Amino acid sequence: MLLSHIDHVGIAVVNLEEAIERYRSSFGLEVVAVESNDLQGVREAMLRLGPSVSNVKGPDAEGPAPSYVPLLEPLGPDTPVGRFLARRGEGLHHVGYAVDDVALAMETLALQGVRMLDSQPRHGSLGASIAFAHPKDLSGVLTELVQAAAG
Amino acid sequence: MLLSHIDHVGIAVVNLEEAIERYRSSFGLEVVAVESNDLQGVREAMLRLGPSVSNVKGPDAEGPAPSYVPLLEPLGPDTPVGRFLARRGEGLHHVGYAVDDVALAMETLALQGVRMLDSQPRHGSLGASIAFAHPKDLSGVLTELVQAAAG
Repeated sequence: MLLSHIDHVGIAVVNLEEAIERYRSSFGLEVVAVESNDLQGVREAMLRLGPSVSNVKGPDAEGPAPSYVPLLEPLGPDTPVGRFLARRGEGLHHVGYAVDDVALAMETLALQGVRMLDSQPRHGSLGASIAFAHPKDLSGVLTELVQAAAG
Repeated sequence: MLLSHIDHVGIAVVNLEEAIERYRSSFGLEVVAVESNDLQGVREAMLRLGPSVSNVKGPDAEGPAPSYVPLLEPLGPDTPVGRFLARRGEGLHHVGYAVDDVALAMETLALQGVRMLDSQPRHGSLGASIAFAHPKDLSGVLTELVQAAAG
């Protein structure tokens, strides 16, 4: 199967610190990274579900893979997440599916007529290789393919 | 940690058969159930990612748990998903997080000031016990807690 599991659900938020505090206190999620991405116009906090850091296995290990909730605050109104917030308000922004090989997954989708927003894989959070598919071809869902960094 | 992994992302669609075909052909997802829920006013197809049926383990086993993409077609315009489609169009509708004990998770969220839409657990898809939390308390995200059926 092309997709192994749901890697993450990205949530667009107005205030990153308030959202981090809410998700930490409500669910006990662990903040594993906070970083700005000027290219995407976003400041992002990666919150992790599942096994604690010391138990996290690589993609080839037997244990369950971690999944993530990235919280996304726009760096300004004229950014993808800024426009999303203006149009819809806070909420689910995109989904990321884990794949073994992002280049192969892109080829497979292209053969099925799914348009890609990226023409080749690029760097994502936590060292992953990623590519986005067009929401119009997937029932309105902005969809990210995620090949995790080698363990 | 309260949440073990992302169990599913629910997608609101206008035409269930078209969406099933798109997600099957694009990603090779397996359709494990199609059912109507009159109470929720929705017809739902459960598509599974991850290990094939013969390899699926129970929640206490070592292997990775499956995750799902439920596609949701409203039974009419005056239903939750029907109103969602009228307001926003097709797209991500809610996220479901896997928990070991849904009643305990509800108590924990309530203590943290997260309002629940359900006052007690109810039956969900595939024999699960579920409860929804209020999107207003979780950055606009309609959030479902999912305790899988005992293996």
